[in-house]
Amino acid sequence: MVKLYSDDSFGLHTDLYQINMAKTYWDDGIHERKVVFEVFFRKLPFENGYAVFAGLERMVEYLRDFHFSETDIQYLREELHYDEEFLQYLSQMRFTGTIRAMREGELVFENEPMIHVEAPLAQAQIIETAILNIVNYQTLIATKAARIKNVVGEETVLEFGTRRAHEMDAAIWGTRAAYIGGFDATSNVRAGKRFGIPVSGTHAHAMVQAYRDDYTAFHKYAESHRDCVFLVDTYDTLKSGVPAAIQVAKELGNKINFIGIRLDSGDMAFLSKAARKMLDKAGFTKAKIVASSDLDEYTILHMKSQGAKIDIWGVGTKLITAYDQPALGAVYKMVSIEDENGIMQDTIKISSNAQKVTTPGLKKVYRIINTNTYKSEGDYIALQDEDVQAQEKLKMFHPVHTYISKTVTDFEARDLHHDIFVNGEFVYKLPELKEIQGYTKESLGLLWEEYKRSLNPHEYPVDLSQKCWENKIKNIEEVREKVSNLKQ
Amino acid sequence: MVKLYSDDSFGLHTDLYQINMAKTYWDDGIHERKVVFEVFFRKLPFENGYAVFAGLERMVEYLRDFHFSETDIQYLREELHYDEEFLQYLSQMRFTGTIRAMREGELVFENEPMIHVEAPLAQAQIIETAILNIVNYQTLIATKAARIKNVVGEETVLEFGTRRAHEMDAAIWGTRAAYIGGFDATSNVRAGKRFGIPVSGTHAHAMVQAYRDDYTAFHKYAESHRDCVFLVDTYDTLKSGVPAAIQVAKELGNKINFIGIRLDSGDMAFLSKAARKMLDKAGFTKAKIVASSDLDEYTILHMKSQGAKIDIWGVGTKLITAYDQPALGAVYKMVSIEDENGIMQDTIKISSNAQKVTTPGLKKVYRIINTNTYKSEGDYIALQDEDVQAQEKLKMFHPVHTYISKTVTDFEARDLHHDIFVNGEFVYKLPELKEIQGYTKESLGLLWEEYKRSLNPHEYPVDLSQKCWENKIKNIEEVREKVSNLKQ
Repeated sequence: MVKLYSDDSFGLHTDLYQINMAKTYWDDGIHERKVVFEVFFRKLPFENGYAVFAGLERMVEYLRDFHFSETDIQYLREELHYDEEFLQYLSQMRFTGTIRAMREGELVFENEPMIHVEAPLAQAQIIETAILNIVNYQTLIATKAARIKNVVGEETVLEFGTRRAHEMDAAIWGTRAAYIGGFDATSNVRAGKRFGIPVSGTHAHAMVQAYRDDYTAFHKYAESHRDCVFLVDTYDTLKSGVPAAIQVAKELGNKINFIGIRLDSGDMAFLSKAARKMLDKAGFTKAKIVASSDLDEYTILHMKSQGAKIDIWGVGTKLITAYDQPALGAVYKMVSIEDENGIMQDTIKISSNAQKVTTPGLKKVYRIINTNTYKSEGDYIALQDEDVQAQEKLKMFHPVHTYISKTVTDFEARDLHHDIFVNGEFVYKLPELKEIQGYTKESLGLLWEEYKRSLNPHEYPVDLSQKCWENKIKNIEEVREKVSNLKQ
Repeated sequence: MVKLYSDDSFGLHTDLYQINMAKTYWDDGIHERKVVFEVFFRKLPFENGYAVFAGLERMVEYLRDFHFSETDIQYLREELHYDEEFLQYLSQMRFTGTIRAMREGELVFENEPMIHVEAPLAQAQIIETAILNIVNYQTLIATKAARIKNVVGEETVLEFGTRRAHEMDAAIWGTRAAYIGGFDATSNVRAGKRFGIPVSGTHAHAMVQAYRDDYTAFHKYAESHRDCVFLVDTYDTLKSGVPAAIQVAKELGNKINFIGIRLDSGDMAFLSKAARKMLDKAGFTKAKIVASSDLDEYTILHMKSQGAKIDIWGVGTKLITAYDQPALGAVYKMVSIEDENGIMQDTIKISSNAQKVTTPGLKKVYRIINTNTYKSEGDYIALQDEDVQAQEKLKMFHPVHTYISKTVTDFEARDLHHDIFVNGEFVYKLPELKEIQGYTKESLGLLWEEYKRSLNPHEYPVDLSQKCWENKIKNIEEVREKVSNLKQ
């Protein structure tokens, strides 16, 4: 028999094991020990040369409101049978930790901490799931959007994916991420209201069906809207749709703003060229052609290479679901924990897969910007106490093939992390969305073109400092020795 | 400058073009005309032989609450500049239509209406986007889950995907859909609370890191939890993890319920066999082995074929994102609309792609169950006024290759649609989730095995009645004639 609870909160939006671990820590009296977790991914999505970090604003919302509601506690008591003392502790839990994170719109690469969480052990554990749920999705979509925008160039690109998004949150947070990645507008009105994203859309096939023919439908639409884009493929694009659009535009003249037409099926390279000729011949040389129909960076590139006459691209499914790789594998790994004497101790997770071995210790990530070219030379991960900027010459190694190295002299070492929460207090000013979009563009400007192309980009250098590397090796050796000393 | 609004509602969770069409209908005075839309998909996901319909409960929630909030109207006024009369109309809009739909857990095939919406034109248009957003995702995940459950068989399968889900809604509605498709439990506590799904989970690598070694960590966990599953791969599965689990289980004996161990990396076919031997040798023959790590129906099948000793499967990313095909393309198409005389008239959308031509008219979907074998002979789509059950012999044609046909005599024609709303009134009793899961299982029982296998299933017959087919052809001819009569 299912029991219904009267409210919903995000306190329980976590994996059960987080609460079970918190229970152990609580029973053992170590729940308040300070611990540091880092969020990073091991592999860039879409074989892209970079990712675009997104999700911070939603994460901030979640953490500022973090609590267990009365019915959350009731559920934990009645269905999962936790004891009263532990429930009492949970019911008073708020987020009291410190978070440093990248700005939204920041470019991020493999194995770089995007977010640095320093908090009491039990809290840090419980918030993991929601943070990854938010950041994995939004970063994935912002990255996909940036790839698509890269191919679209200066033309306009619109987000049309709500109907194929993975439920409602994905529709609105996904379109916000798309805007961060460079999209111009969305069809989702709720996202427009909530985030101030420009909204876009005119009519669907259903309206043409309702009026039974293109001409009547377009005319009716034009009578009630000044800005008109007519969808021309309900019955027959070139025989019926385009001629009807032209006829209505001619008849109504200056009474409307005839923006153009939309193609939604068929061979759009061919149709757009034919429609362009018809529009031009009728004198509508400034009318735009909008295309939508399962588009992504690959189809757009191909259509462009075929000389398609498309001015505005509507992208839905392939963007909002990140169709070719629908998950980013960002993880949340413990790098340091306070011991019984209050000293922070490094921690490591070993794996038979070398890529899965974590990098221990308190670290910072710097973007090394060449102050002569104003291009980035790579990223540099150092231990927290290293003064990277103070070095006269920075030696950077290829992360895997360490014999490849270069020395950088005139550089700015830009710390990519910002204080978001300090001891539970929210200290960051969330930028306006438009500003975030601008920041993505600016950050992409620091990258050489070789890192940005959508096929086979160069590998951007992400280097560990000598100290950071040595510290990692030392930790690996310690664990190996411990394991080999175990009695079999 | 972004303007902030104080509330959020789902009224605006729609594409802008829906509202723009509603505006045209309103100006033209046809906004209240009755119209019928159907929701269906053209292609089964994952090349599966069937799909599992899900999303109805969420859709009901959305429609029962459907309205535009005060700030929704304010946004439409101030940012999108609709006129006051239209806004007044929108502010009073509630859902007043009639909906027939399949039960959640129903098996659904290509081109079959899952949902039948009969409503005033403007309303029917505005609700399209959210309905598709909900049903596309949940049906996709329920189907993926059923595929995975099919391979898992009688063993247990757990949903572990929250951290990779596409934002928060996908995590909880996705796990509900997974439960409908046959999953046993979820790691998401909020979904457990909200839907009554059993929750599952013990501890992560971080706990082992916090305690610095497997033995201490497992022991501490066992001191505060009776049910124990130890995660054994933080440092070294066979040298450290499994021996430590065995040691703790021996030491604590009956004080705990040693359920077993969890493997989360490495070659799990090999590791599970080695771990099984170690557990058995230590006398823990009933201890279970849980596996989790990028599993799906393919990896599970392969691991089983290699004799992996796994009792419980934890599935995350590949399920919750429907990784190999992250979108279901269900559409919402107008099949009939009231004319100026109040008579319902069929409508059709033609396309150069034959599969995209819609089937006009008011229709019903029947599952034809052979009363001798109690297996389904196929589905039968008929016009609303046909009495399918009354026929003595039902002739069924292959949907594409019509020369293949069969005649069914002893049959039950089960109408797959149920009344959900009648003229805006909610008339359906939502089943308990457990009951829905049972219904999926029961429905799968009606299908021959050939339709259910995960690779190359037989194509299940979905037939149009003779009348329905003739009506479609008639509508196509009418449109063709109309287009060819247009002056060029």
